[in-house]
Amino acid sequence: MNTQGLPLLTHPDLWMKLEEDHLLVLDRRKLPGRVEFVRCATGEEVARAIEDMVVQGAGDLGLVAGYGLVLEARQNVAEAPGVQAERLRRAAARLQGTRPTGNYLARVLDGLLAVATGALGEGRLPVEPMLESLRGMIEARDGAVRRTARFAESILADGDAVLTHCFAGATLIYALKFARENGKEVRVLSTETRPYLQGQRLTSFSLQQLGVPVVQICDNMPAYCMSRGLVSKVFTGADRVALDGSVANKVGTFQYAIAAHYHGIPFYVLSYRGPDPGTPDAGSIPVEERDPEEVLNFAGVRLAAPGVRGYYPAFDITPPDLITAIITDRGVFPAHLIRRYLAGESGQDSAS
Amino acid sequence: MNTQGLPLLTHPDLWMKLEEDHLLVLDRRKLPGRVEFVRCATGEEVARAIEDMVVQGAGDLGLVAGYGLVLEARQNVAEAPGVQAERLRRAAARLQGTRPTGNYLARVLDGLLAVATGALGEGRLPVEPMLESLRGMIEARDGAVRRTARFAESILADGDAVLTHCFAGATLIYALKFARENGKEVRVLSTETRPYLQGQRLTSFSLQQLGVPVVQICDNMPAYCMSRGLVSKVFTGADRVALDGSVANKVGTFQYAIAAHYHGIPFYVLSYRGPDPGTPDAGSIPVEERDPEEVLNFAGVRLAAPGVRGYYPAFDITPPDLITAIITDRGVFPAHLIRRYLAGESGQDSAS
Repeated sequence: MNTQGLPLLTHPDLWMKLEEDHLLVLDRRKLPGRVEFVRCATGEEVARAIEDMVVQGAGDLGLVAGYGLVLEARQNVAEAPGVQAERLRRAAARLQGTRPTGNYLARVLDGLLAVATGALGEGRLPVEPMLESLRGMIEARDGAVRRTARFAESILADGDAVLTHCFAGATLIYALKFARENGKEVRVLSTETRPYLQGQRLTSFSLQQLGVPVVQICDNMPAYCMSRGLVSKVFTGADRVALDGSVANKVGTFQYAIAAHYHGIPFYVLSYRGPDPGTPDAGSIPVEERDPEEVLNFAGVRLAAPGVRGYYPAFDITPPDLITAIITDRGVFPAHLIRRYLAGESGQDSAS
Repeated sequence: MNTQGLPLLTHPDLWMKLEEDHLLVLDRRKLPGRVEFVRCATGEEVARAIEDMVVQGAGDLGLVAGYGLVLEARQNVAEAPGVQAERLRRAAARLQGTRPTGNYLARVLDGLLAVATGALGEGRLPVEPMLESLRGMIEARDGAVRRTARFAESILADGDAVLTHCFAGATLIYALKFARENGKEVRVLSTETRPYLQGQRLTSFSLQQLGVPVVQICDNMPAYCMSRGLVSKVFTGADRVALDGSVANKVGTFQYAIAAHYHGIPFYVLSYRGPDPGTPDAGSIPVEERDPEEVLNFAGVRLAAPGVRGYYPAFDITPPDLITAIITDRGVFPAHLIRRYLAGESGQDSAS
């Protein structure tokens, strides 16, 4: 596809490139100051890049992990098929263990592993079939993201002021692009999203690249902005959607959903891949806790007094009754009816 | 009074000292890493120190401003009484203009100005009477803070996990000290409070000095912590309390009050001086907006992409129906009855 003029963090081809013997991944930790790529030569290096937040977001890190498995396959072509299969299984388990909360990661790795073992069983090398499968996943995902963005765009009105938290990914960027192409002026309020500052570094950066007016606020300001009429709609991403309509996303999402509900402001979740069939409800979503040191430091500057402990839950879970609708590639669903997505049903074209 | 063993940010004598020709004020921006004092030789330098956040908190900055006026009086002793009075009025107006949201600042300056003009009218120099008045204010305030802390302590139970935002000042520190003296174990969850990180730098530092277990979280985490049962009560300070029970405090307070209400967790406001008689309701509290650049930087590091704008409302206003009670030096009042404080009525000894 033509990626010209698109912000860096939309199509994966813009921020990730597989070379002969390594993978280049845009280092999101350096944004917006520097556009630098991290070089990963092995599955293990890819796993560490994911753990170290070189890449983030359930969909994006899933695809990076997929390339990690391809690198692993390339390195083992000289081995016996059984050894290749065993090493791929081990690498997949390692990559799967990097981040527990999202579910796309498992979907990508399981898919590629099935392709690889299939090829090996037929006496073929697994690399080309895996790459073909991964390319298919990337384009399928981009298509789903764009379809979701079209539905999200239909909800946006001229003059809207959208609050977003963390980085809702390419879906929100495309939605705002489509809105502008349809003559709608939409402004965005972006929370900075401590401790990794994805809002400052990824969302505001991407919207600035797109030319959408964006105002940066801190994570303690959304409710005040709502009370002053500065927010007309909230859009966030989702790391995992349960069958009961509960949504796991970056910690803070739940807090802003409560505040939006209090103010009667619609709260939309962007989830181009719908709910996870294996996750019945909120209780079955593991919430990742990351290293508390990350809360106590910033950019090498120690903030906390010696002896103070930190606590860093990376995600939270928003119950369906606080969500106006979940926007998917099959349309717009009331959160408590999101299960219908799996039956192949279409949602509404837009929120009624 | 004996200030031994007290954390630095309790009694003003610990963090502020008037010398012969200058005032030393603890530089809170350097905490917790360094304990350094800023030297202010004139009223103008004191005004700038307040604007630059060397000191913060409505009560504390009011007292610093008072010393600024004393410095001004000292420098003008050789002038004619009319000139002295005029310069003091001008200096008071300058100091009053530093921060609009709190109201104690005006109370201190008006009081000292009245003392000064009274003395000048009687042909006396104003410095000594002003100093005596200011010393009286400091001790009266410390007494009110301690009485308020006693009432707050009566609300705390053994095993409580208190969430607090920003820096609720000496009142919360004393309350936790008294609780420990009464054999109650209380833990604290402290929000870091962007962009100035008063939670990280002042609250957690002070509680660490006191030996109270404190866990640092980011401003997007309180609702999640509430949902996981990690918060049993919320205590915040107040920069101004209106007669209708609305409370202006550091931005974020309102957001956490909404989240506490959603979870059925009691939300208490510490206000040792009760409501402001000149402030009928929320609409009559000016909310200070500070330099948006402060939002775009973190600990001296530029975060935002070029062209991204920031927005920095420094306070927000919590309506009385989200507040369980306001704790004052005259007892504990339901927020909507806080007006009774002014009639000299006593509140309850503790929340019922």
